[in-house]
Amino acid sequence: LGDIIQKTCRIDFEPIGKRVDVHPSVTLLEAAQQAGVMLNSSCGGAGRCGQCRLTVMQGKVSAPTEEEKAVLNQQALDAGERLACRVSAQDDIKVHVPAQSLLGRQRLQLNGDNGFLSIDPLVRTIPISVSPPSLEDTRSDLERLALSETTFTADPGVLTLIASLAREKGWVLDLYLRENEIIGAGPSGKAPLGVAVDLGTTKIAAALVDLTSGDELALAGAMNPQIAYGEDVISRLTYCQHHPRGAETLTTKVRQIIDQLMDDLVRQANTQREQIADLCIVGNTAMTHLLLGLPTRQLAVSPFVAATHLPMDIKARDLGLSAAPGAYVYVLPGVGGFVGADHVAMILASGLARTKGIALGVDIGTNTEIVLADPKTGTYTCASCASGPAFEGAHISDGMRASSGAIEWVSLTAEGVRLKTIDNAPAVGLCGSGMVDALAELVRCNALSTVGRLDKGSPFLRIGTSGPELLLAPGASSGSGRDVVLTQKDVSQIQLAKGAIRAGLESLLAATGTLAEDVTEVIVAGAFGSYLDIRNAFSIGLLPHLPYARYRQVGNAALVGAKRSLLSLAEREHALDIHKQSTHVELSTFPKFNRLFTLGMQFPLPKPV
Amino acid sequence: LGDIIQKTCRIDFEPIGKRVDVHPSVTLLEAAQQAGVMLNSSCGGAGRCGQCRLTVMQGKVSAPTEEEKAVLNQQALDAGERLACRVSAQDDIKVHVPAQSLLGRQRLQLNGDNGFLSIDPLVRTIPISVSPPSLEDTRSDLERLALSETTFTADPGVLTLIASLAREKGWVLDLYLRENEIIGAGPSGKAPLGVAVDLGTTKIAAALVDLTSGDELALAGAMNPQIAYGEDVISRLTYCQHHPRGAETLTTKVRQIIDQLMDDLVRQANTQREQIADLCIVGNTAMTHLLLGLPTRQLAVSPFVAATHLPMDIKARDLGLSAAPGAYVYVLPGVGGFVGADHVAMILASGLARTKGIALGVDIGTNTEIVLADPKTGTYTCASCASGPAFEGAHISDGMRASSGAIEWVSLTAEGVRLKTIDNAPAVGLCGSGMVDALAELVRCNALSTVGRLDKGSPFLRIGTSGPELLLAPGASSGSGRDVVLTQKDVSQIQLAKGAIRAGLESLLAATGTLAEDVTEVIVAGAFGSYLDIRNAFSIGLLPHLPYARYRQVGNAALVGAKRSLLSLAEREHALDIHKQSTHVELSTFPKFNRLFTLGMQFPLPKPV
Repeated sequence: LGDIIQKTCRIDFEPIGKRVDVHPSVTLLEAAQQAGVMLNSSCGGAGRCGQCRLTVMQGKVSAPTEEEKAVLNQQALDAGERLACRVSAQDDIKVHVPAQSLLGRQRLQLNGDNGFLSIDPLVRTIPISVSPPSLEDTRSDLERLALSETTFTADPGVLTLIASLAREKGWVLDLYLRENEIIGAGPSGKAPLGVAVDLGTTKIAAALVDLTSGDELALAGAMNPQIAYGEDVISRLTYCQHHPRGAETLTTKVRQIIDQLMDDLVRQANTQREQIADLCIVGNTAMTHLLLGLPTRQLAVSPFVAATHLPMDIKARDLGLSAAPGAYVYVLPGVGGFVGADHVAMILASGLARTKGIALGVDIGTNTEIVLADPKTGTYTCASCASGPAFEGAHISDGMRASSGAIEWVSLTAEGVRLKTIDNAPAVGLCGSGMVDALAELVRCNALSTVGRLDKGSPFLRIGTSGPELLLAPGASSGSGRDVVLTQKDVSQIQLAKGAIRAGLESLLAATGTLAEDVTEVIVAGAFGSYLDIRNAFSIGLLPHLPYARYRQVGNAALVGAKRSLLSLAEREHALDIHKQSTHVELSTFPKFNRLFTLGMQFPLPKPV
Repeated sequence: LGDIIQKTCRIDFEPIGKRVDVHPSVTLLEAAQQAGVMLNSSCGGAGRCGQCRLTVMQGKVSAPTEEEKAVLNQQALDAGERLACRVSAQDDIKVHVPAQSLLGRQRLQLNGDNGFLSIDPLVRTIPISVSPPSLEDTRSDLERLALSETTFTADPGVLTLIASLAREKGWVLDLYLRENEIIGAGPSGKAPLGVAVDLGTTKIAAALVDLTSGDELALAGAMNPQIAYGEDVISRLTYCQHHPRGAETLTTKVRQIIDQLMDDLVRQANTQREQIADLCIVGNTAMTHLLLGLPTRQLAVSPFVAATHLPMDIKARDLGLSAAPGAYVYVLPGVGGFVGADHVAMILASGLARTKGIALGVDIGTNTEIVLADPKTGTYTCASCASGPAFEGAHISDGMRASSGAIEWVSLTAEGVRLKTIDNAPAVGLCGSGMVDALAELVRCNALSTVGRLDKGSPFLRIGTSGPELLLAPGASSGSGRDVVLTQKDVSQIQLAKGAIRAGLESLLAATGTLAEDVTEVIVAGAFGSYLDIRNAFSIGLLPHLPYARYRQVGNAALVGAKRSLLSLAEREHALDIHKQSTHVELSTFPKFNRLFTLGMQFPLPKPV
């Protein structure tokens, strides 16, 4: 009889100290999700990316699969290293999750180039002071408060708030008005607040602003919890196709984290949720579709058609976001394909609309969006390319995101390798800007060929188990106790990413018949783009080698665009203009793309000293 | 240890055959609610109305309370009769629920005077036939479908429906458009449908209409399940004040029953919920507040202030009503106090706005609403009076609603009492129109004095346990096996109700300085009002004795008004005009009301033969 009883295994995740009981059929990746342990998983649990690596310390687990043998060498397997997505427990076990596999609290890019803005928000404050009801004046609450001849409306929730607030405050209060709808109310003289959110594939940033003064009151950030279901948009959409209620899960996850960020913002600013009278959220097409619960089936397959690229207004409560009872979320319009609201927000905030000559804008991420703005025609030509998460640390032996211990700057000197890590912590791995620096240094030192081969004769390299490699930090001084290296395979991964981005830029120039030298300004947006050494980006051929002064790094312009849309109705109209004036170039069918990709993969010859 | 375990008692409700297990602290009224047995309860469970009477057949129950002793005589108590709201089980018990205590399927008034209407609904059908997406044309679904330059919006749920429907139907389909919002979609050529609901305190009526042709496709009706929580609006609002989550319960109950009525409508018309593109609901102020989840605390106490009397547009899904994914519910504006959307709908539908002279409108119910329309000034003066549920059967010994076995017509002849019952079933009790007839006959036969005393010397009366009474049906032939009688106490109850209604009418005339004889038309709306014998209403002084031709009985004009608002945008604008042109007279503070009430209570002298 004992055999019939389904056994559960207890999994202890160390050093996080989380524990969960699961059935033996459950993978450790799924067990980690249940336990609230956020593991990297760029391939969505397919056993390919090697990001969910962990070490089994104690207890019996399933035998290594073919996928694990392809990613982990025998030495690693002998040491108990496994892929969480492929292994399951057969007993109570204890596993160690290395820092690289764990999505911790990471460095988040929150600011951007703000620029001048006249404050004219969609939601306005109407101060009210009226006589209370009496037997002689039994007008309804709404008619009592709405002073003009216009017919105002309000949600039941708003009327409930008003009924108690008005009576508590002796009929002296502020109404929050959005067009002819009262969406909230607050004590007299308290400004309504707005929340701007940049919903990235990897990172989420949120800001709390005063809708009257335009002041930023608080900032908060978090990793996108959808990462556990796939690191790029296509993996996530694929997850949704293959799992019943998968889209619902991803939608719920992202709504919950935004609601948590709002908690953080409200706590920092010592205010209440009811004061939040407006929200503005931006993200790429897949992110906004998942947030809003829009259909994604047709977005997951060619020709990648969105349900809508038009702006959306939806009640915050419909997204499970607690704010003023009638508050809306405004999602900016997108352009086409995966080029979404975040890109329009970036154009809005970066000043691309105000340049005198032709300008390029590039927002490097797991999905990279590029725009060419032509002030003569007033048009924007946009494209996106799946540059992949290499610069975020995925598919790189010791790759990691920009968090504590990440090597963010590298220099090769006669005395050896010089490094700078985030927080000056012992080196754990290499983040995007460090990768660009490392490769640029290898090019400079003639250790990397035009086609991307490491020179095994170079004095800067050593020969590792899989060929030449750059030792960045020896195990003795590293944060992980293991050597931190950059291998030939890593170089090839970075080469693919930078090739895709460069090919995207060149394709857009070709598609619009623009010569690179005619571009008067290049705006580099986003977190990675802000920490990027532009000159090193020239050295590895990631960005076109134009005069350095033409480049401008603007930080998280998407969040700034969202903030501007909160503060100014004119900016929302401007966003709609950008949407209307934009065309989307589908790079996967652009004839010259493959040739430009091959060219983009090349590393330039080192500059003569 | 056995004593510690909380005991539950099983209650069997006969002859309905429902069963529930409850703790001994729970009253049988609450147990019945849990079991889905709908008991009358006009006082909201206060032990006063005697409507929830039942007989304990088997098992031990709590001792009779003082309230029960006041309502039930010793003989009844000895026979096991109890008030469900006061008694609780102490063991497994079996109870018998008499037909009078049970809210069964009742006769419902569904139609009214429709009048001419040009069909111009707010929701329109837009036939669509577009080319499918391709790599050369990757416009989003919404932009593909929205052909003009205007920016259209749509809910996520609508976009999900469209994404699958468009692909299934080869991009040939109909969109349901409401202003610039796409609220639904259907296969090409299928007309969108609308649902009109008259949400009465006692009865709910619903109609399904074709929004293109205006045809009525189905009708359905149900009792308002809130009756179990109190028979009139004040008892229900009081219930909400005294029970945590009480308002929520009443809101849920009424939303569920409307959703069930929609099931019924859709089944009758053999169509789908997705075709329902618009809804229009009317009800008195308390009913619409509870439906919408508006605050009711301030409405429950003097000066009885509504949260809003303005029209409300709210998504059907926010009310838990399944329809086209983006469909709205439109609630018509109200006037003031408890004079709500149903009264505006009645004015809309009854033709009161088109009369040449001064017109009166009266909608008799548990709450009676009255309007005086003055075509010279284009104004409406409205009032409501708590006439009580006597005409619905409450507080009357053998009173009942207009359902099978109810005496609806009475005549006193030399040969004795002549009756007509609904469905010609054996008499069970007396409904409103029967009460009016009985009293009119008693007046005619000199058996009822001006002040409302039954003449114990009258040959038509017998002496019962509590004085003179009219025997309508002896137990030998009645449906209940008991004598069906009309007692002196019953006469007094009816007198109070008719006095309140007449005083309301006279107060409105006085408040507007109108002489009764100057009223050119009197419109009597509602179910009771339609079955009422107007001449008998004169005889008992319920209605002013004007030339009979000036009276018009229009049936359920509130439902017709709701239907008209579904079919015509102009009617919604007209409703808003009526709202703006209306003033509300609060009768509880009207100085002459008390004197007019005293006069209204009098029975006129019998007309000379």
